Amino acid sequence: MSFDTSTRAVLADDEVARVDAYWRAANYLSVGQIYLLDNPLLAEPLAPEHIKPRLLGHWGTTPGLNLIYAHLNRIIRDRDVNVIYITGPGHGGPGLVANAYLEGTYSEVYPGIEQNAEGLRKLFRQFSFPGGIPSHVAAQTPGSIHEGGELGYALVHAYGAAFDNPDLVVACVVGDGEAETGPLAASWHSNKFLNPACDGAVLPILHLNGYKIANPTVLARMPHTELESLLRGYGYRPITVTGDEPTNVHQQLAAAFDEAFDAIADIQHAARTGGGASRPVWPMIVLRTPKGWTGPKAVDGEQVEGTWRSHQVPLAQTRDNPEHRAQLEEWLRSYRPHELFDANGALRAELRAMAPSGNRRMSANPHANGGLLLRDLDLPDFRDYAVDVTRPATETHEATKVLGTFLRDVIARNPDRFRLMGPDETASNRLSAVYETTDKVWLSEILPVDDHLAGRGRVMEVLSEHLCQGWLEGYLLTGRHGLFNCYEAFVHIVDSMVNQHAKWLSVSRELVWRAPIASLNYLLTSHVWRQDHNGASHQDPGFIDLVANKRPEVVRVYLPPDANTLLSVADHCLRSRDYVNVIVAGKQPALAYLDMESAIAHCTRGLGIWQWASTAAGEPDVVLACAGDIPTLETLAAADILRRELPDLAVRVVNVVDIMRLQPENEHPHGLPDNEFDALFTRDKPVIFGYHGYPWLIHRLTYRRTNHAHLHVRGYNERGTTTTPFDMVMLNDLDRFHLVMDVIDRVDGLGSRAAVLRQRMADARLASRRYTREHGEDDPQIAGWTWGDDARLR
Amino acid sequence: MSFDTSTRAVLADDEVARVDAYWRAANYLSVGQIYLLDNPLLAEPLAPEHIKPRLLGHWGTTPGLNLIYAHLNRIIRDRDVNVIYITGPGHGGPGLVANAYLEGTYSEVYPGIEQNAEGLRKLFRQFSFPGGIPSHVAAQTPGSIHEGGELGYALVHAYGAAFDNPDLVVACVVGDGEAETGPLAASWHSNKFLNPACDGAVLPILHLNGYKIANPTVLARMPHTELESLLRGYGYRPITVTGDEPTNVHQQLAAAFDEAFDAIADIQHAARTGGGASRPVWPMIVLRTPKGWTGPKAVDGEQVEGTWRSHQVPLAQTRDNPEHRAQLEEWLRSYRPHELFDANGALRAELRAMAPSGNRRMSANPHANGGLLLRDLDLPDFRDYAVDVTRPATETHEATKVLGTFLRDVIARNPDRFRLMGPDETASNRLSAVYETTDKVWLSEILPVDDHLAGRGRVMEVLSEHLCQGWLEGYLLTGRHGLFNCYEAFVHIVDSMVNQHAKWLSVSRELVWRAPIASLNYLLTSHVWRQDHNGASHQDPGFIDLVANKRPEVVRVYLPPDANTLLSVADHCLRSRDYVNVIVAGKQPALAYLDMESAIAHCTRGLGIWQWASTAAGEPDVVLACAGDIPTLETLAAADILRRELPDLAVRVVNVVDIMRLQPENEHPHGLPDNEFDALFTRDKPVIFGYHGYPWLIHRLTYRRTNHAHLHVRGYNERGTTTTPFDMVMLNDLDRFHLVMDVIDRVDGLGSRAAVLRQRMADARLASRRYTREHGEDDPQIAGWTWGDDARLR
Repeated sequence: MSFDTSTRAVLADDEVARVDAYWRAANYLSVGQIYLLDNPLLAEPLAPEHIKPRLLGHWGTTPGLNLIYAHLNRIIRDRDVNVIYITGPGHGGPGLVANAYLEGTYSEVYPGIEQNAEGLRKLFRQFSFPGGIPSHVAAQTPGSIHEGGELGYALVHAYGAAFDNPDLVVACVVGDGEAETGPLAASWHSNKFLNPACDGAVLPILHLNGYKIANPTVLARMPHTELESLLRGYGYRPITVTGDEPTNVHQQLAAAFDEAFDAIADIQHAARTGGGASRPVWPMIVLRTPKGWTGPKAVDGEQVEGTWRSHQVPLAQTRDNPEHRAQLEEWLRSYRPHELFDANGALRAELRAMAPSGNRRMSANPHANGGLLLRDLDLPDFRDYAVDVTRPATETHEATKVLGTFLRDVIARNPDRFRLMGPDETASNRLSAVYETTDKVWLSEILPVDDHLAGRGRVMEVLSEHLCQGWLEGYLLTGRHGLFNCYEAFVHIVDSMVNQHAKWLSVSRELVWRAPIASLNYLLTSHVWRQDHNGASHQDPGFIDLVANKRPEVVRVYLPPDANTLLSVADHCLRSRDYVNVIVAGKQPALAYLDMESAIAHCTRGLGIWQWASTAAGEPDVVLACAGDIPTLETLAAADILRRELPDLAVRVVNVVDIMRLQPENEHPHGLPDNEFDALFTRDKPVIFGYHGYPWLIHRLTYRRTNHAHLHVRGYNERGTTTTPFDMVMLNDLDRFHLVMDVIDRVDGLGSRAAVLRQRMADARLASRRYTREHGEDDPQIAGWTWGDDARLR
Repeated sequence: MSFDTSTRAVLADDEVARVDAYWRAANYLSVGQIYLLDNPLLAEPLAPEHIKPRLLGHWGTTPGLNLIYAHLNRIIRDRDVNVIYITGPGHGGPGLVANAYLEGTYSEVYPGIEQNAEGLRKLFRQFSFPGGIPSHVAAQTPGSIHEGGELGYALVHAYGAAFDNPDLVVACVVGDGEAETGPLAASWHSNKFLNPACDGAVLPILHLNGYKIANPTVLARMPHTELESLLRGYGYRPITVTGDEPTNVHQQLAAAFDEAFDAIADIQHAARTGGGASRPVWPMIVLRTPKGWTGPKAVDGEQVEGTWRSHQVPLAQTRDNPEHRAQLEEWLRSYRPHELFDANGALRAELRAMAPSGNRRMSANPHANGGLLLRDLDLPDFRDYAVDVTRPATETHEATKVLGTFLRDVIARNPDRFRLMGPDETASNRLSAVYETTDKVWLSEILPVDDHLAGRGRVMEVLSEHLCQGWLEGYLLTGRHGLFNCYEAFVHIVDSMVNQHAKWLSVSRELVWRAPIASLNYLLTSHVWRQDHNGASHQDPGFIDLVANKRPEVVRVYLPPDANTLLSVADHCLRSRDYVNVIVAGKQPALAYLDMESAIAHCTRGLGIWQWASTAAGEPDVVLACAGDIPTLETLAAADILRRELPDLAVRVVNVVDIMRLQPENEHPHGLPDNEFDALFTRDKPVIFGYHGYPWLIHRLTYRRTNHAHLHVRGYNERGTTTTPFDMVMLNDLDRFHLVMDVIDRVDGLGSRAAVLRQRMADARLASRRYTREHGEDDPQIAGWTWGDDARLR
């Protein structure tokens, strides 16, 4: 092999000894966490009762994480730099916990885990133990913004953390397993969006320990020249460190970090002293060391160190198999714990001095507990952006376009703490007003024909939902704000990332030391009903269902039916903390229903009767409920038909903005009390509910309600293609004509006039379909429907 | 710019003229589809009524797709090679439809669209028109296995198609927008898994037209040397073609294709004549041509050709704006349609001769209609792999390990048509028996320590769920079989891919000319209840919910509770066609309940009463229902407690394997008729349902059932961490003790003995929690529960 193994003697011998001792201390604590119930300092020979009955955790990646940590500590101390540490192979949880403990942070955050032998015992015992802490790096781990369970997002989180943090260096370990994932493969290109003048730096450390759970890794087995070509192609200058002899590797790695931090400083200095905004070639480190390094070389005759066999727990029978137990004891003692900890179990002072102090400790860096740094957004008054609505359902606006004017001014007022993410869709989603005040970040070549590209900008566009999501997560977790605008169907691309973020929020809310962060806000538009240029592939409203499966404490879903309600909802979401907020709204010209005062009142309640559209003064004969802009349009058009054609029928129209209000109050914090629900939806009258998404979600939310048996929901039933807007609702039986038929079918005793009307509705559907197929557009009578001039708000 | 623009005169002048004419014909038909209702051959000046009222589609990518198609036709004819065409920028639908029409395939498949002027008129009119065809490449497009709606999966589909098809070349256009996505970025590395000796070839064509919807692309704006470094780093030899002058580009592209196909032939020849299985450097093409090439240069004073403004419909007001209309007519006439089509509207013979014939036409290649080539799996008798169950719930087996022995022999019998995909989890998921007969494909370096890696193998492991999914989709769509084994939580990574595949199946089932393909089979294990080494991040059973949202015709979900039922279900799934089958099963040692005969009967019914576990002979007082291995265990343990402690209570145990049976029969083909459902679940007795996943899914499936009001579901409620198995069920109130309490709370008139039992159950929960926290493992009494010796099957 032809890797650079030349050793520049960056460190004096005693420095090597100290950094090695610190590494051994972290490794010792890591192994202790995986194995030990008691006898934490090996004061006596290891006995079965000292060992956990269930051995759970991951050793393989841990010594590498600890090695990097120790060397970063040296850099932080020497240079007084501001560094956080993101560990892609976050299943190496014991390593990060060990380091937080060595730095003292762990005991500050969890006072029960003291800096003595008893503290060590508790530290070991709690790991992967019932009532203790998870095996991975998690929200419970001080210094982390990154749960290591689902691989692929380390680098994109690192970039999100670095944006608008010019002082920060995000050291990011990318495991060679993780590097095979799609999101990680795309994340390397994040350097095209990082401005050395006004953003921080990301230092990727590609750790090639060679193996995953059961296989070698793709990147570790590429010819090294090919790997270098790949990384240079991604726009980095790789600095390679390789070896399995600690002293040699310490020297190499120290030199590599020096070189990398020098390069970062040079790049930033150049960019900040008059340099252009062109993209530099950032340094990165490639670290080749054995998987499970310093662990057992072989177990039961099979090689373990340097292979996938060290991935989890290398010695599996340490309780029952004396040979394994002896090997474990030998392994633990190889770190020479009594050189590391004093008689009381405290880390020796000379090693304690190896760690940075205060907020410079990576485990205590406030950027990794972003809520501490969070400043409220300076928000303009959203009411100033209201559209006039003198008569409901008579004039059209593009809701997201109106929101764009509000977002424009949010951006203008918060140039350092708000970003708008979008996968090449911000203009398509009609938020272009933001370009009146900002640009899209673009560090590559810019041509004269380009539109609002610049080295600085608050809008981030890349054709990767994964990058948009990951950048925003990293940005939020380090104490800033943002909004992700996305085609509704394709937000499913980040389903699993949302799952992980929601889990993170659920846990961090229960940790008193974690300060609340800004919510993860989605604007989903170009939605299922109006994918005019596209077809079935662009039609999927199921993200709401996914989000609704998460803990109720952290999820909110809003379906504002028009421009003013969208403004009100967006303002609310931007002020909120620790939620995942999903807003689904239309971008096409659509009727406005509520003036701003009514919109605020309606959004505050989350749902309510629209009296102006109802013919029932008191108890109705039927309730027409709706959620979402298109279902609201069709429901109102149906109500219009009913009031004209069946004037004796008492119809109540209920609109729902906040669908979590439909749940019982013991299921979701927004849940409506049963008596209030009954007051809106009646206890026994038919309810025809037009819903934006999959209809069964409404049933899932309401099945415990008194009147559930009379609830009939129309929604998206996976019927769609490239066709006209009205044809789309007809394909799914959500059209006004079908809703009228649904009413007639479900209200008893309507008589012959209703029967005639029902037939007319069926005929109208046929005629509409015929018209559409003949003309290629919707019947203007249908498309242009507005409420009559007798409607008045309030 | 320093690109290679040297032109080797590969083509004679008349060849250039002919390939250019063919390209013009495809472009003409593409523009016609986007714009024209009538006057397809411009027999008269273009009038408003000839133009569609709604202009929907994507022009920008189309001329590039057509250019490549024309040149591939030349290669296919010259070399008689077997090529299919995958178009990443599949929103360029009109291009692929145009080419299928030019080749005659379109008229063969859709006889109404004839090869004359009237056929052209219909072809144009139907595009993006109500009742017509979608705007994208879709299942309706002959020659496609790839819906172009959601970007990112072209290259991984291409590799999936190439595996085990040694004769096939998959030409795959990767758009530079798509290239920014994570899945595409990872897909380049698929070459590490393609064996030149026994697989086909993939020829990636990276089309850099420079722009997405509203932005330049990352790859197009990298320095070309950096891009080349990236592609070489991915393991390819890029051949660059660049230009905006057609004749020059035709010559370059012809030379590039010759070079690429020569290289492919050389690589394959070497590998097939004694060469080793080492990975070659495959050729690829980088094509830089203007976006919207040959379209309007500028519109209303703004540059369009060569910019993002050509992405969709460059001239938007052609009906109302005479200037736009004149520009459109000029554009259409620039292709000189009367040189291309004869007076009847048929393609002229000399152009017709440019296309390959028969199955060599890319639009008619049977590999792109894989069902035509599908051969049934040669399946061993799954009953031969049964575990003995003489008494239910007394002995343990690892269900997936047992399945592994069946899969081993499936693989042995079908060495050319079955692959097992897994993201580095096949061994973890305990399917290792397959390695008794096969290996994992690995074309990179192999070291002595490696385990079952080889150049040939039926198992494909890479740490990317996207690649596993995409490879398998490509493999299935070209007429083969497979199974994707995955940790349950992380299958959410491919949610959006599953959505797209399910939509494809829904559409293709309705196309008589598309032959059924093998189902997309998932084995989800390492599931929510038994993520012992990990924690909350690895716990998510929501994939079932996602799949249940798709069209009922194409989705099936099975929760076999033990080894024999898993065998029966797996056999069924491997025989099925055109479905997405989700199987959730455990890998940990777990009780076996049914002998094989009973398992088959139970799985055939999909659900049923387990009389051996029930105390009710006739109508019960309470139904204990369960679905999933862990809920079944807890339910049976609860039933065991009840029969001992409340012997007078008539308990019925119902187990559900096929959860779609819970739906009404008019909602899903597997739906149970109401009377049968009532017979199982009663009309009015309490039903305590222990379910594997989110409990509300069971409500969503059953809300129309007679007895729904008395249904009480326990399942995963997003409570979890790294803890013991029994602690996990307790955290979510799914444990046996809580189920007994649920019964007592819901059955009236049980009296004081029940009240005492309820308190004992509450105490048992507390004691269990205490035990677990003290010992770090579950109480052996609980963990070791088995059914008493009085149980007998049947």
